[in-house]
Amino acid sequence: MRQSTLFTKTRKEAPKDEVSTNAQLLVRAGFIHKEIAGVYSLLPLGLRSIKKIENIIRTEMNTLGGQEVELSALQNREHWEASGRWSDEAMDVWFKTELNSGGQVGLAPTHEEPLSSIMADHIQSYRDLPKYVYQFQTKYRNELRPKSGIMRGREFLMKDLYSFHSVVEDLDVFYEKMSDAYTRIFDVCGIGHLTYKTIASGGSFSKFSHEFQTVSEAGEDIIYVDEARKIAINKEIYGDDILTELGLDRRNIKEHKAIEVGNIFKLGSRFSEPMSLNYTDEASAEHFVIMGSYGIGLGRLLGTVVEVLADDKGMKLPKSIAPFEVHLVSIGSGDKVLAESERIYRLLTEMGVEVLFDDRDKTAGEKLADADLLGLPTRIVISEKTVASDTFEAKDRMTGETSFLTEGELMNLLGR
Amino acid sequence: MRQSTLFTKTRKEAPKDEVSTNAQLLVRAGFIHKEIAGVYSLLPLGLRSIKKIENIIRTEMNTLGGQEVELSALQNREHWEASGRWSDEAMDVWFKTELNSGGQVGLAPTHEEPLSSIMADHIQSYRDLPKYVYQFQTKYRNELRPKSGIMRGREFLMKDLYSFHSVVEDLDVFYEKMSDAYTRIFDVCGIGHLTYKTIASGGSFSKFSHEFQTVSEAGEDIIYVDEARKIAINKEIYGDDILTELGLDRRNIKEHKAIEVGNIFKLGSRFSEPMSLNYTDEASAEHFVIMGSYGIGLGRLLGTVVEVLADDKGMKLPKSIAPFEVHLVSIGSGDKVLAESERIYRLLTEMGVEVLFDDRDKTAGEKLADADLLGLPTRIVISEKTVASDTFEAKDRMTGETSFLTEGELMNLLGR
Repeated sequence: MRQSTLFTKTRKEAPKDEVSTNAQLLVRAGFIHKEIAGVYSLLPLGLRSIKKIENIIRTEMNTLGGQEVELSALQNREHWEASGRWSDEAMDVWFKTELNSGGQVGLAPTHEEPLSSIMADHIQSYRDLPKYVYQFQTKYRNELRPKSGIMRGREFLMKDLYSFHSVVEDLDVFYEKMSDAYTRIFDVCGIGHLTYKTIASGGSFSKFSHEFQTVSEAGEDIIYVDEARKIAINKEIYGDDILTELGLDRRNIKEHKAIEVGNIFKLGSRFSEPMSLNYTDEASAEHFVIMGSYGIGLGRLLGTVVEVLADDKGMKLPKSIAPFEVHLVSIGSGDKVLAESERIYRLLTEMGVEVLFDDRDKTAGEKLADADLLGLPTRIVISEKTVASDTFEAKDRMTGETSFLTEGELMNLLGR
Repeated sequence: MRQSTLFTKTRKEAPKDEVSTNAQLLVRAGFIHKEIAGVYSLLPLGLRSIKKIENIIRTEMNTLGGQEVELSALQNREHWEASGRWSDEAMDVWFKTELNSGGQVGLAPTHEEPLSSIMADHIQSYRDLPKYVYQFQTKYRNELRPKSGIMRGREFLMKDLYSFHSVVEDLDVFYEKMSDAYTRIFDVCGIGHLTYKTIASGGSFSKFSHEFQTVSEAGEDIIYVDEARKIAINKEIYGDDILTELGLDRRNIKEHKAIEVGNIFKLGSRFSEPMSLNYTDEASAEHFVIMGSYGIGLGRLLGTVVEVLADDKGMKLPKSIAPFEVHLVSIGSGDKVLAESERIYRLLTEMGVEVLFDDRDKTAGEKLADADLLGLPTRIVISEKTVASDTFEAKDRMTGETSFLTEGELMNLLGR
């Protein structure tokens, strides 16, 4: 894409009311726009990143046999009354609104109730199980003081998968598969090395649940990490008992702030009971379906990548989730520079490389500063100097390494 | 996909409270689930169709230079107060809700105000124009009595594009290009032959707007059609004046009920003025940006296809928007039938044909009735009879034509 046609512009300064690094950088780079506190719109660059994250997650969910749906945001209060979660005392983040025809509906903060209700229409027998159903869907949570940018919003896109099983053993097996999928997702998104599977409190059904926590000073959680074992414990359950249970030594544990980028939870029959989600076994006896839930906030994941990888010049985006792989920066207005820039832009685009081509009428300083801010993985500069030496200046935004490459070497670098 | 793994089941009878044909068939086929009146969740088959419609539209929008965004549903009331559309008197379909931190927000019924406000951050000069920005985004409208299934909902997915221009002439040119794109979209989705570009009332800026109206008994609009000229006039402005203006003869006009599947509208500066969306021209004089808006409801489009193409056995879905192209139906439990069905399923899937393979343990009658209900374009039956004769029974759901084909002929039919 030609940057001259992109409608968003960068900003030198973040808006004063943005206190989080992720929102400051994403707003400055034109990835997002703040509508109100905790509510952001996705602009073209931000949407491209979110769609890439979505596809990384979708691939993993489909591999596990997930079936994609998209449930409504407006919620029938009856379902939530059945589970005891309609009242603001039980769930303090509800947004509720009134129908013109009378009656109240809620804006879904999560989807256990409505999906369990749908599944009750379709599951009758043990032969209908297991099933895995997921969606990418907007959640609404009436946060009192959202101040973490796109990491904790009032409106945010989430992948939530719910699994439905006849027996606990089957849930246990799937839960581990999903845990592995989550590990792969965070690896692919470039934060695997900072992300720990973290033991957290469970519910009435299971003693523990698991969170995926990424170490960051911007985190709202405190975790205790055993680096060697690559596991962590959430502060809420940290203590001698759990250390003993896991065979961990307090001397090997480090305390970190961390961002919860995903969670997996064994729900048991917490929701199948109130929603009458039953199945009959081979002997025609009725049982409640056993459930698990598995969430990842897509905006939060992008925000976390920005928080943990950025430097003082801007973002550093892994290729997997960057809106474009290459930032092609044309410096100077000479005919040769322009012609060579156009040629390389066309060549890379035809090769299937996603290129943002900075063809704007700006100074070298402005263009290079914008390239650092946007943080695309590979910056290629074409200038009088590179044209004269028949090379390309390529900079790896993640490592900061700059190299002068021949055309063949450049093609090698981009893996084609 | 194996139908035995699909979590949704078909229903013989529609729920009693569904009065529209589209919702009756889509619910029976397991494409959608009703959460409350006018609010439907998309189940796997329905979501696949909607995603195909989305991609058909996205391709056209990108071809016209559209840049995709995703704006928030929660809306800052200030923007809507500025345009005079915050009050329930001005806009009677608002859903509004309260922030826990105090203050009211709305759920976007449309997005002129928030997008104009965003564009005001990014457009300063005539050099920044034109720009075309679109999204696939959920709209919320507090309809009093939703009774048209997914054709008029309280929560629904819409493509809305907004164009931004410096001068009216530029808007006029783009408006015609978008009109042509809409014609192509409805052609590809299989309702072009029933859809008329219809002249409707404009606003303060433009005398007329245009709707794309599909002739159907389920329609809520009345249009007057000149078949030969392939144009129509909405009842709201129909009369001698407009007939004269268009050079139409009342004797050639037929009255029809119709469904509005899309609309295009010249907004002028109706929203740029209150949102302070200005640009400076070459002489540094300031002007308001000139806008147009272009909408298509995705659920309504799917609902319209169902309404106008279905028969009493079920839906008839064009290949372009069907969740799968082929319904492979295995009839009988003999080893040869099973082996041949598996072989063909694997072969077609490897060829890239999207196949729903009915491998369920059901009777022939149940399977064929479900195939008619789901309405996938090509049904292929594998039975003792076809295996014995080394042929495949292929039925075109749209025409009802059945043929017995060799494997080579079958591959030809599927265009590979």
